[in-house]
Amino acid sequence: MNVNASKKQLPVDKARRYLEPGPVILVSSHHDGESDVMTLGWHSILDRSPSLVGCIISKKNHSHHLIKQSRECVINLPTTDLTEKVIGIGNTTGAEIDKFSEFELSTERAQKVGAPLITDCYANFECRLYDDSLIERYNFFILEIVAAQVMTEPEYPTTLHYTGDGIFMVAGEMINRRELFSEHMLD
Amino acid sequence: MNVNASKKQLPVDKARRYLEPGPVILVSSHHDGESDVMTLGWHSILDRSPSLVGCIISKKNHSHHLIKQSRECVINLPTTDLTEKVIGIGNTTGAEIDKFSEFELSTERAQKVGAPLITDCYANFECRLYDDSLIERYNFFILEIVAAQVMTEPEYPTTLHYTGDGIFMVAGEMINRRELFSEHMLD
Repeated sequence: MNVNASKKQLPVDKARRYLEPGPVILVSSHHDGESDVMTLGWHSILDRSPSLVGCIISKKNHSHHLIKQSRECVINLPTTDLTEKVIGIGNTTGAEIDKFSEFELSTERAQKVGAPLITDCYANFECRLYDDSLIERYNFFILEIVAAQVMTEPEYPTTLHYTGDGIFMVAGEMINRRELFSEHMLD
Repeated sequence: MNVNASKKQLPVDKARRYLEPGPVILVSSHHDGESDVMTLGWHSILDRSPSLVGCIISKKNHSHHLIKQSRECVINLPTTDLTEKVIGIGNTTGAEIDKFSEFELSTERAQKVGAPLITDCYANFECRLYDDSLIERYNFFILEIVAAQVMTEPEYPTTLHYTGDGIFMVAGEMINRRELFSEHMLD
């Protein structure tokens, strides 16, 4: 499948549409000839302009060190067709194996960062480290999204939302309640 | 409905089960005789022990000032039966109206903080301000959950997940993939 052909560029301030609902994400990184990818559930949009997202990435993760040094990464949005890979990536360490090879992940070059995009993910958000001051105390990386692309269909991705203990909630019905909002609250 | 009777105490390190999936939350606060409540979608678990959650609360929200001064709040977890109230609370300001009265919210005294619990919510997480150093720069409140209670049924709440533009994703199917996890990753 030529996934590239079915993705479109997304204005970076629109990333919240995909990340605010709280999906599990795959964070890919690259530093000094080495690449890694990890599964992550603890993140939040922090701002829209600049387009900031905060991610908790423990020092126990090999990716922590690659991102801290390269100051770049890509947030990839997997859907239910990747559930087994998402779990496998989350249960192994890049300090011991090459996860891209182990889990047969197709990758592409990013536009603005050195970390690889994961092709089969619904969306890719290229990030630069915006503020490293919370890394030491909280393992909290404040990232700026500098480029974004998303699949054009389906309209809404069937994302995974982790509850712990091996159990995920899968994104369900979309409900439109625009008529209940004040105009200035809609964007 | 006597909702109290159907809630149980939850160890505070288990809060991630309900917050990590990324639901919209209602944050209630109280300071100096005044109470407020706001709708919030930008939050993340930061740690489990201590049980920390980070929330973006803009200075434009009346609640920002009440929480900053009282150094306490309650995170309440609404489900789809409260959708209209969630939107109404998010589209009004406590600087102008008493939202508890306007939206007919039933409240109870919290166990450890001065802010009120919202009775009809599926879960209530009582919080104290743990670190105020990111409030000025990012409106980021780092809170410690000091008491928690959740409804005993249904087993999983039908939470709301905001995507912007008046559209919500509703929590869907739960899938159990414990058999794919390494033992040490299950908790």
